[in-house]
Amino acid sequence: EEGQKSESWLPSLQTETPKEGFELALKLSRMGVKSTQPDKDVLFRERAEYSQDGEALIHASEVVAIHFQTVAAANNYWK
Amino acid sequence: EEGQKSESWLPSLQTETPKEGFELALKLSRMGVKSTQPDKDVLFRERAEYSQDGEALIHASEVVAIHFQTVAAANNYWK
Amino acid sequence: EEGQKSESWLPSLQTETPKEGFELALKLSRMGVKSTQPDKDVLFRERAEYSQDGEALIHASEVVAIHFQTVAAANNYWK
Amino acid sequence: EEGQKSESWLPSLQTETPKEGFELALKLSRMGVKSTQPDKDVLFRERAEYSQDGEALIHASEVVAIHFQTVAAANNYWK
Amino acid sequence: EEGQKSESWLPSLQTETPKEGFELALKLSRMGVKSTQPDKDVLFRERAEYSQDGEALIHASEVVAIHFQTVAAANNYWK
Amino acid sequence: EEGQKSESWLPSLQTETPKEGFELALKLSRMGVKSTQPDKDVLFRERAEYSQDGEALIHASEVVAIHFQTVAAANNYWK
Repeated sequence: EEGQKSESWLPSLQTETPKEGFELALKLSRMGVKSTQPDKDVLFRERAEYSQDGEALIHASEVVAIHFQTVAAANNYWK
Repeated sequence: EEGQKSESWLPSLQTETPKEGFELALKLSRMGVKSTQPDKDVLFRERAEYSQDGEALIHASEVVAIHFQTVAAANNYWK
Repeated sequence: EEGQKSESWLPSLQTETPKEGFELALKLSRMGVKSTQPDKDVLFRERAEYSQDGEALIHASEVVAIHFQTVAAANNYWK
Repeated sequence: EEGQKSESWLPSLQTETPKEGFELALKLSRMGVKSTQPDKDVLFRERAEYSQDGEALIHASEVVAIHFQTVAAANNYWK
Repeated sequence: EEGQKSESWLPSLQTETPKEGFELALKLSRMGVKSTQPDKDVLFRERAEYSQDGEALIHASEVVAIHFQTVAAANNYWK
Repeated sequence: EEGQKSESWLPSLQTETPKEGFELALKLSRMGVKSTQPDKDVLFRERAEYSQDGEALIHASEVVAIHFQTVAAANNYWK
């Protein structure tokens, strides 16, 4: 990671490639859920449920799309 | 915080790191809920409910994603 | 407000501080509802209902987040 | 309207004031509905219904917020 | 269309006027649906249903708003 | 693809034409679903269901619209 800071899970928005950028967007989306519900058992139970539901999967993809838009701009679209 | 103003909860959008930026996005999302429903008991009751619901947690993560996009742009992506 | 115009509720997008910017975003969100449903009684009845519902409160916070993104950009993030 | 073109309902995105910009955002949102469902009777019947429903009103306000973000950028935030 | 390329339905994002830009946004929204569900009969059946439902019409207008934001930026807001 | 990197499915955001950009947006949307639910059988079953549901199809189109906004900006709107 470019300029590793003392931070734990989010030292920087910079990534080498678009694929890494997409993975960071996934991580940001999941942290948004974890920050609202830190209880692992609840997360595990709910994940088992919404990952079986088409509309919930589309909604999860929407959150990734918003974060990916941020990360892509942060990396000047890896031009 | 950079240039602490007389304001209470939102003196600035500037943060030192992306992680602090994410925390500010969480705070902005919660203030959006609190400003619409200031009653603590209602918030507590509803939080207990939606934090158990996968789709509601995804929706909460979506609001954080929109605010994080704003805070990241405000900090020029911490480049 | 900067350059008070003849307009009533929205003379300008400029605000002194991020906190005032957030309040303007709340006002814009509410005007979006009022413009669609001007009837005060209906608004009052519906507000009583959705302000008790976690998911509706998250959805309201999402609208504020979109308007806040606009107001923050309009104020160059109060840098 | 600035530079009235042969177009009917959308000659330009430029408006004098933020308030007019908000009204244009409302118009764009409604045209989005009308373009999908041109039948006036259906629109009238559905409007009567969703304008009584808190969550639907929040969703309508969200569409206005997205269009207002576009119109505000188009007018350089009326600076 | 400006600079007609060998492409079929989407040669360019450039349009002469905001009204044509809005029509392109409608086309992009519909292609998003068609790309997910190419079966014309299903589309026809579902269109008949959601075009009678207020909230679905608002949701459709939201997708048009996002695409219109893209097309408006692509045309520098037809200034 | 411009500058083929070692990456597998997402070497770059650059595309020759808007149509290819739209196809990349579709691919990004589907990867958002697959990353949340990698099980092919579940995806197949859920796709069969949501692709028959008008509102789910609109929601899918919304995710494509957000990714298309990112890809269009990444390609400077193919001007």
